[in-house]
Amino acid sequence: MSTVKPIVPVILSGGSGTRLWPLSRPEKPKQLLPLTAEETMLQLTARRADGAAFAKPIVVANAAHADLVEDQLRAAGAEAQALILEPMGRNTAPAIGLAAIAAGAGPDPLLVMPSDHVIGDVAAFHAAVQAALPLVAEGWLVTFGIAPDAPETGYGWIKIGKAIGTGVHEVERFVEKPPREAAEAMLDSGDHAWNGGIFLFRADIFLGALAAHAPEMLVATQRSMEKARREGARIWPDAEEFAASPADSIDYAVMEKAPRVAVVPVSMDWSDVGSWDALHAISACDEGGNVCRGEGILAIDAQNCLIRAEGGKRVALVGVSDLIVVASGDDVLVLPRGRSQDVKKIIEAMKKG
Amino acid sequence: MSTVKPIVPVILSGGSGTRLWPLSRPEKPKQLLPLTAEETMLQLTARRADGAAFAKPIVVANAAHADLVEDQLRAAGAEAQALILEPMGRNTAPAIGLAAIAAGAGPDPLLVMPSDHVIGDVAAFHAAVQAALPLVAEGWLVTFGIAPDAPETGYGWIKIGKAIGTGVHEVERFVEKPPREAAEAMLDSGDHAWNGGIFLFRADIFLGALAAHAPEMLVATQRSMEKARREGARIWPDAEEFAASPADSIDYAVMEKAPRVAVVPVSMDWSDVGSWDALHAISACDEGGNVCRGEGILAIDAQNCLIRAEGGKRVALVGVSDLIVVASGDDVLVLPRGRSQDVKKIIEAMKKG
Repeated sequence: MSTVKPIVPVILSGGSGTRLWPLSRPEKPKQLLPLTAEETMLQLTARRADGAAFAKPIVVANAAHADLVEDQLRAAGAEAQALILEPMGRNTAPAIGLAAIAAGAGPDPLLVMPSDHVIGDVAAFHAAVQAALPLVAEGWLVTFGIAPDAPETGYGWIKIGKAIGTGVHEVERFVEKPPREAAEAMLDSGDHAWNGGIFLFRADIFLGALAAHAPEMLVATQRSMEKARREGARIWPDAEEFAASPADSIDYAVMEKAPRVAVVPVSMDWSDVGSWDALHAISACDEGGNVCRGEGILAIDAQNCLIRAEGGKRVALVGVSDLIVVASGDDVLVLPRGRSQDVKKIIEAMKKG
Repeated sequence: MSTVKPIVPVILSGGSGTRLWPLSRPEKPKQLLPLTAEETMLQLTARRADGAAFAKPIVVANAAHADLVEDQLRAAGAEAQALILEPMGRNTAPAIGLAAIAAGAGPDPLLVMPSDHVIGDVAAFHAAVQAALPLVAEGWLVTFGIAPDAPETGYGWIKIGKAIGTGVHEVERFVEKPPREAAEAMLDSGDHAWNGGIFLFRADIFLGALAAHAPEMLVATQRSMEKARREGARIWPDAEEFAASPADSIDYAVMEKAPRVAVVPVSMDWSDVGSWDALHAISACDEGGNVCRGEGILAIDAQNCLIRAEGGKRVALVGVSDLIVVASGDDVLVLPRGRSQDVKKIIEAMKKG
């Protein structure tokens, strides 16, 4: 076993998620919002990889958010060793490629984290990371398997294979966005986990996997970094070269194809806060079961509602239950709890309109 | 029977109703809003008393709304012979006293109309007015009895007595805001009507009734008009004198006390638009049963909702039924249909807050 180097956090902040519209918008997406706490999800993510075990983070973000990202990291007491500003989104595999190159393309372990998830039990997360390190040093690509508690059809699932170390297992199979029945069967099986989108691997091993399974992606990311413009910690990969990269997720492009892929199952109160319902589920409720955030909220005889009023908006409710009401800017969203996936219907209808 | 003079419409526009918050606000109350049509309720009221049978209207309004009222009347092709600008509200009896004095305090018949009701069948209304005129000329105070279709506990009810002319009856009894059981009994009886707040009487007879039943009110209104400031059609009654008037409704101060009070029962698709539910009930629905008004409304899989978006607001709903959602200015109201009386709870809570 080789010596393990300090872990380099790689924070992926390129998302422009619309599932939390009208609060989340392209100019200020989910990860840059204080959704679950006083701090933004990006800030909470940076704090999650703070301490002696970690190097300064590499952050990959949309170029349009450079100032916001830098300001938020500074306010959280974090400083990026590199802030890679993507000229366009190419999904996660190329973004991680950029980060692996910026990290020096050597044996340093990269801890890849989406910037818009929450982890309630950070100690459990850290323990899982530590458990993975020996295998990572030996060249394994490691993902973290979230203990599932619902038959989610929108997630990627992992079948947990045989143990190859303490708390570490081979991945027997990836199952992306299964049909409902399959999800229920996997939930019942007890040997499946959700793929939480958090990864740990050596930079050189990841780039090697790109070379083997997505060579065009490797070439495009390398060329875009060679021609990158740099200013302090900011790195602007060359747009033309980066545009030549195929767009694909790390799951499809690498993890499902590479031979030595491991999973560390972990229970850590994880949530991707992928919908207003998910946010309600992880938020502290008042005695009426309501989750209210915003100064101008007046809820009379209301139960189990999620209410957000931003930017001086005032929201008054009477006599409603299980409703999601979000007022932000000039927009108001109203839908029942359990239907927040339908926000995408609204986004689609607005695009057409 | 003396000769009947042209009818002087007296439009009462002093209300500052809060029951249609957040659209209706003190600075722009219900009657000055286009709630039921492209025109405002004041404009619709002015149009209702247009034509050869009518003189130019006398309008009694809150002084704060002088410009708005004048602009709206002009836009509706109406011109007030007098725009009486109350320094403060003293309820309807003193307001009508001011108008009766401005009308010359003679035998001219005054048709007193709230500015915030709608009448669907204007021909029926005009016929009822014509039916009342002979009795009015003989000195009767006439009210119009709306055929009731619900056991309303918030209205005044009238027991219809014996006929004293074609379509005109004595009022046997007034019942203000009855308990539910009494309202149901009156609804079933077939000989009760709602007091619609529309009146027809000679100016001199009304002032005489004030002298008999509310002499302090008469003196205060007379003095405030003697010392009034005038500018074109605008009349500002003296504030100190007017403030000395008791505040009371015409029903309590006069109609329930005077001896010669008649009622003309009439079916004319009347509504006081006294709540968001009432507005929903009288509005044309789309095929989903929704009443939408505002450019930025997106309703997906929504049924039987009332949705208003004013001032560039965008309201998106998915999967909700029987909901009232109103976005106006910085305020958003959400409540189920059938509970719109609870808007007053919100107003009270906001006052306390």
